[in-house]
Amino acid sequence: MPSVDTLNSPPEEYLRQHLDEVIELLNKQKLEEAVVHQQVMPHHDLVETLMHKQHQVAIKQKLDNLHTADIAYILESLPVDQRLIVWNLVESDLDGQILLDVSDAVRETLISSMDKSELLSATEQLDTDEIADLAPDLPDDVMQKLLQTLNDQNRQRLQSVLAYAEDSVAGLMDFGMVTIRADTTLGAVLRYLRQRGALPEHTDKLFVVDENNVLKGVLSLKRLVTNIPEQHVGAVMARDFVCFRLDDDAEEAARAFERYDLLSAPVVDEEHRLEGRLGIDAIVDLIRRKSDEERLAEAGLREDEDIFSGIWKSARNRWLWLAVNLITAFASTRVIGLFEDTIVKIVALASLMPIVAGIGGNTGNQTSMLIVRSLALGLITPSNMRRLIVKELAIGLLNGIVWGSVLGLLAYWLYANPDLGMVMAGATLLNLVVAAITGFSIPLVRYRMGLDPAIGTSVLLTAITDGMGFFIFLGLAKLFLDTAR
Amino acid sequence: MPSVDTLNSPPEEYLRQHLDEVIELLNKQKLEEAVVHQQVMPHHDLVETLMHKQHQVAIKQKLDNLHTADIAYILESLPVDQRLIVWNLVESDLDGQILLDVSDAVRETLISSMDKSELLSATEQLDTDEIADLAPDLPDDVMQKLLQTLNDQNRQRLQSVLAYAEDSVAGLMDFGMVTIRADTTLGAVLRYLRQRGALPEHTDKLFVVDENNVLKGVLSLKRLVTNIPEQHVGAVMARDFVCFRLDDDAEEAARAFERYDLLSAPVVDEEHRLEGRLGIDAIVDLIRRKSDEERLAEAGLREDEDIFSGIWKSARNRWLWLAVNLITAFASTRVIGLFEDTIVKIVALASLMPIVAGIGGNTGNQTSMLIVRSLALGLITPSNMRRLIVKELAIGLLNGIVWGSVLGLLAYWLYANPDLGMVMAGATLLNLVVAAITGFSIPLVRYRMGLDPAIGTSVLLTAITDGMGFFIFLGLAKLFLDTAR
Repeated sequence: MPSVDTLNSPPEEYLRQHLDEVIELLNKQKLEEAVVHQQVMPHHDLVETLMHKQHQVAIKQKLDNLHTADIAYILESLPVDQRLIVWNLVESDLDGQILLDVSDAVRETLISSMDKSELLSATEQLDTDEIADLAPDLPDDVMQKLLQTLNDQNRQRLQSVLAYAEDSVAGLMDFGMVTIRADTTLGAVLRYLRQRGALPEHTDKLFVVDENNVLKGVLSLKRLVTNIPEQHVGAVMARDFVCFRLDDDAEEAARAFERYDLLSAPVVDEEHRLEGRLGIDAIVDLIRRKSDEERLAEAGLREDEDIFSGIWKSARNRWLWLAVNLITAFASTRVIGLFEDTIVKIVALASLMPIVAGIGGNTGNQTSMLIVRSLALGLITPSNMRRLIVKELAIGLLNGIVWGSVLGLLAYWLYANPDLGMVMAGATLLNLVVAAITGFSIPLVRYRMGLDPAIGTSVLLTAITDGMGFFIFLGLAKLFLDTAR
Repeated sequence: MPSVDTLNSPPEEYLRQHLDEVIELLNKQKLEEAVVHQQVMPHHDLVETLMHKQHQVAIKQKLDNLHTADIAYILESLPVDQRLIVWNLVESDLDGQILLDVSDAVRETLISSMDKSELLSATEQLDTDEIADLAPDLPDDVMQKLLQTLNDQNRQRLQSVLAYAEDSVAGLMDFGMVTIRADTTLGAVLRYLRQRGALPEHTDKLFVVDENNVLKGVLSLKRLVTNIPEQHVGAVMARDFVCFRLDDDAEEAARAFERYDLLSAPVVDEEHRLEGRLGIDAIVDLIRRKSDEERLAEAGLREDEDIFSGIWKSARNRWLWLAVNLITAFASTRVIGLFEDTIVKIVALASLMPIVAGIGGNTGNQTSMLIVRSLALGLITPSNMRRLIVKELAIGLLNGIVWGSVLGLLAYWLYANPDLGMVMAGATLLNLVVAAITGFSIPLVRYRMGLDPAIGTSVLLTAITDGMGFFIFLGLAKLFLDTAR
């Protein structure tokens, strides 16, 4: 494993520095080749080839000293043409690890530049659980050949992992397990480990199983090294430990890791037979990925964009959301059309109505965000749901009175029309109550229906608060102002 | 440590089940007490006291079998009155750990129910780094007394941690370090550990220091148990390892943990002297907390709300954001006032203008979200910035042509007015280009100014796309439609 030298600079300064050096080398190469191209030199081709070689060697040397994760970062920061130049210079036995480290969008560009034999040799050195992670991006025939290179146990493991959903514990686990028996002594375990040599990455505990591979306990390396060698495993191992089933939800497992401060945990099947291991590294990746996905989804991006992916591809990534928003915006503004005669008479309504609609959207989103969050943390129970709803309604009413008064006074001051002020105040109050009701109803109903309460809530909510805002405000205006003129 | 028995149910089902049982006990207690209250019984008080005691014992037994993190979850899910009943029944030597486990908002309610001596006895059993985490919530005099109970080394550590920013590595590290010398043998290390007994939580490696406490290497427990006892530490330890400085940024450290799949890392001062240890548990908490804070901030919530906190408190938490939004909404709708005479003549403009403004906000937010994300991942460099800007502009133009045509046709179809359709198409196109420019400018400028590019970007952006959307659409309408009538 190439080294990481962060003793002398903060980690990201260190990273940025390497990126800058690679970019400089790439630019120099481009520039000098262009210069040679323009001059009519003797042995023109030879000079060009020599210089090219020289730069390639310099970049390669640079890369050979870097950690795979740092190379992944550099690849992600480069435009596609330069990215592929660097990718071809990477030591080929690091290819597999780097494919795992880069983002989905960048992985696609790298894989599409590789031929089948390259892909096969890059992936066949990976662990079974890592192959499973790459599986969705690999061409079918490469996957088939890959399966043939595996031994029976690993092929079975790979197939069973792929059979489970990606966001189940089985989709996240690895097979880096070292198993021991309860009736051996710690001294014997130490001898076995020394003989065995290197342990799987991130091993912090050994799994104690019986002859049927049924999990009996876990022995942390900590306990192994702090107890005397004559002790038996069974006397020292922990018998109460957190353990997951193959089909447990991965996000629940992540929250359990946080709650109980776990580093790793065993995964068992229905009969408590040891099937795999869940490590904190996979959990950290999951947490980051989920929070990324949610934030992208909130802005209406269907998937992560490689910052250098093509304009067409990027534009299409954003269109579904824009189309949905356009439809809802169109629907909610149709309400305005119903009141056109009123607007013509009192044109001030046109500049006030977006404010009533807007503040409804803002407060509604605050409510729904808190409900979504509380649902995600499992804090909402049937017994406290009513209290919560009453609280949000009360806040909606309170906000309605406060902001309704503010907006009413503002409208009165702007247009010197007390009736318009009253209508503005009343409409704001009503729309904020509507917003509170919508804000807790949408996520709760979606949750009850087994849908993700986070996704789509904001679009739907804004459509309702906009439409209702326009309707309430213009409706009240028609009732109380229109006839007065 | 109380146990966690998840062998027989998924972790959150297990958690929910305990919560339900506690709620049932609490409700039973309340109900039976109410019944006794209403009946005129002999020995009325005695019966009530006895029944009360009986329920208290039942709840206490339940709690005594739970992990502190599970008790924390139950406390968070209960309304304040019931929460304090349960809190008083918690084994007092678990108080400190539970205060660490609950959310900030809930911690406040718990601490305010405790008197000073209770607080002192709860906190004085904690580790120095844990005391530092609670410090902001503790009354000054408790903090002073707490400092007196510490030994010199720990007092110094606590004061130096508190001197660093909360989001620096120093604010996140703990002191669970076991140090050894390079010239000892592994066998001697094992004997030392056995003599020492229990290791600090989450110990996965030992730190190798010289006589001046300067860090020379790290020895993982893995290497300790897989090498022969006669080997010297210096020959087996890792010399290339990721290591952080006291004042490194905590979020950078978190990304380094993810990149290099670390479980723990040493923290050193300027002279490479070992000062502390950064553990993956603290990193996971940080990642979750930051992603939570960002999402709350996006919806305009200044801090996490206890779902049962009072209406006044919750309402005030939401007001700053509503005020800011109101001001920006007010400013952008003032533009509409400038064109009131045009709207009176062509009232269709009133229902079309929110659509032009809205689609600008949506596309602008997509652009800014991608830029904020790329900035956070460190993917934007001076050399690729121009490419990125050109790409976003091109997407803005492409989107403008596509959605401008769609909206133009829609307006034409609705109002059978080709000129109105042209104005709608032109305004959409222009506003989407404005949105793209705003979408990359705001985060990049904020980043250059050393401000957080994520915070406030969305409000500012929406204000600009709204105002410009109204201005462009109504302005074009005035130019091309107003005169025609």
